[in-house]
Amino acid sequence: MEVVYRCSRCGFIAEASTWLWRCPRCGGPLDVNIKGLKLTLSERRDMWKFSSVIPAKPLASLGEGFTPLVRPGFLRGNTYMKLEYLNPTGSFKDRGSAVAVSKAVELGAKLVIEDSSGNAGISVAAYAAATGIRARIYVPRDAPEGKKSLIRSLGAELIEAPSRAEAGRMAIESLRDGEAYLGHTWNPWFLQGTKTMAYELLDQLGHVPDAVVLPVSAGTLLLGLWIGFNELRSIGLVSRVPRLYAVQPQGFASLYEKIHGSTAGEPTRIADALRVSNPPRLGQMVDAIIGSGGDALVMTDNEILDSWKTLLRKGFIIEPSSAIALSGYLRLLNGNYLSNDREAVIVLTGNGLKYIDTMGRI
Amino acid sequence: MEVVYRCSRCGFIAEASTWLWRCPRCGGPLDVNIKGLKLTLSERRDMWKFSSVIPAKPLASLGEGFTPLVRPGFLRGNTYMKLEYLNPTGSFKDRGSAVAVSKAVELGAKLVIEDSSGNAGISVAAYAAATGIRARIYVPRDAPEGKKSLIRSLGAELIEAPSRAEAGRMAIESLRDGEAYLGHTWNPWFLQGTKTMAYELLDQLGHVPDAVVLPVSAGTLLLGLWIGFNELRSIGLVSRVPRLYAVQPQGFASLYEKIHGSTAGEPTRIADALRVSNPPRLGQMVDAIIGSGGDALVMTDNEILDSWKTLLRKGFIIEPSSAIALSGYLRLLNGNYLSNDREAVIVLTGNGLKYIDTMGRI
Repeated sequence: MEVVYRCSRCGFIAEASTWLWRCPRCGGPLDVNIKGLKLTLSERRDMWKFSSVIPAKPLASLGEGFTPLVRPGFLRGNTYMKLEYLNPTGSFKDRGSAVAVSKAVELGAKLVIEDSSGNAGISVAAYAAATGIRARIYVPRDAPEGKKSLIRSLGAELIEAPSRAEAGRMAIESLRDGEAYLGHTWNPWFLQGTKTMAYELLDQLGHVPDAVVLPVSAGTLLLGLWIGFNELRSIGLVSRVPRLYAVQPQGFASLYEKIHGSTAGEPTRIADALRVSNPPRLGQMVDAIIGSGGDALVMTDNEILDSWKTLLRKGFIIEPSSAIALSGYLRLLNGNYLSNDREAVIVLTGNGLKYIDTMGRI
Repeated sequence: MEVVYRCSRCGFIAEASTWLWRCPRCGGPLDVNIKGLKLTLSERRDMWKFSSVIPAKPLASLGEGFTPLVRPGFLRGNTYMKLEYLNPTGSFKDRGSAVAVSKAVELGAKLVIEDSSGNAGISVAAYAAATGIRARIYVPRDAPEGKKSLIRSLGAELIEAPSRAEAGRMAIESLRDGEAYLGHTWNPWFLQGTKTMAYELLDQLGHVPDAVVLPVSAGTLLLGLWIGFNELRSIGLVSRVPRLYAVQPQGFASLYEKIHGSTAGEPTRIADALRVSNPPRLGQMVDAIIGSGGDALVMTDNEILDSWKTLLRKGFIIEPSSAIALSGYLRLLNGNYLSNDREAVIVLTGNGLKYIDTMGRI
């Protein structure tokens, strides 16, 4: 497997043999490009079943990937839910962390640095623990207390920042020699992990669905799916890429606004996992939405809360930010943007067990 | 598939066409016996892959079973961990609830009643929600607040009792016509769900391990494994049953005491999920331990806490009660009860995300 970094903005190319987190020439986000991609399935039953297309060796496994795909009775018969919240640390982020942390260790890092609204920090802390390297995680002060405690319990150093944006700035400024900035919103290896969900959907369904509806903040899952489905098309295993529908909360809808113009309304108070204001890969995210024939949508907190309650009352223990995908799906269906005969997958991204101390208050 | 109830104490036999939770003749625990057991694997990727040996139809699926089996680098090469905490509601209980709740609905129940220290209550509440019937759950007042909140959020009625034992008594006394007492510590269908872990271990490993080390309170997992491995032997798919090692906390070690005599020491304050004092199936539990050539062990809270920290610092987010299995494994290894060339599976039963609000205090 021949692997190179490629800058999505200026076209810079370099061998992927050292750790880079952005383009050394223009500062833009880097991609990881694989030449001679070939899919052979391994015997493993986690996401490393697809290791032939993952440009990293798994240095530790916590059981990531191969999450259940269920067809719930309360939705149309051709609608599936992908239960990504059943990943090892409770979010889809584990796909990305497993690859990015393994790669950082492979390239010599002794410490990884991450900034996160919570879930990515937990995930990176866990995979750093599993591979035996140190982690320093920057989170906004108002991240859920439980998520902060968990990051510390996993052995990582936790640093609180005044805001989500400030957490990112502080993380990058803190970088010293020998430390790897993992920053999942920038990291090109992270997307090589999240792309496995596209392979997995094909493996589980036997085909690709017509549409995938998912929560989006910095776009790490959106771009992973876009990369994965396009790889599958380039290999010749599928003939088309599903429409990708990105669902965002009010106040943190930069993708929606880039496509449709600015929005008004109170910023979300409950979708805390989706609070990213200036995603570095915004341009690529727009390309994925337009290129797939999908769209971006914005939801109010009331809509998110309704979906959260609906899913809990059906036994699906997810976090509020994840419920936004069901809200988006219902909006698409009611507005006839998704016709009844189209097969859809709703991705539920984060585990509600992280919120049981606050559930009593809803 | 021909299915009958059979009383393990007096030999009473009845067709399994109505809901019974204990022997109507002597009050002993009932078993479910299957005649003409035959294993054919279905296409499903959850525990219903083994539906040919499960005497119930899945009326709802939340993605139960097929949890990861990992071989962590910090243990001997032939030691696996079975990550049962990645089940839909965060514990192995989902295997039992999926079968028992489905069966209750099939047999006409409109409401199920459960008593639990927390995890089984969450699980039954979720599967009742998924199948669309009501649930009433009795828990001890001092169960973790988060677990109680979650049971309510899943739409179940929660009733607090002065103690775990009192929760059981109140549940049984409350029973009215048309209501099904699910009580997992008694329920014979529940064991038909937990037994799938034996089938799954064979499926994942290609053989059965030499030993399985697991936390034990009311024995629902222990007995499920015992039933499952014996079925596999009766079908002729394996030639022996693994040694089953039951690990219990101080103060709630009735199985250990039945085999080895009474113990002293402060009752556990951290293994809250294992607090069952008089398990109705104690006699069967002893038979499973003796019959498999295994043993029962008792751990102190300090040992449990050490194992909990060890596992968290390796990235495994489990609840304290689950960590006891690692403590037991280490005791067996250090005491030369488990020789180095023996393959062992440590079962991690419950998800630590339910405890993140308390983690800051350890």
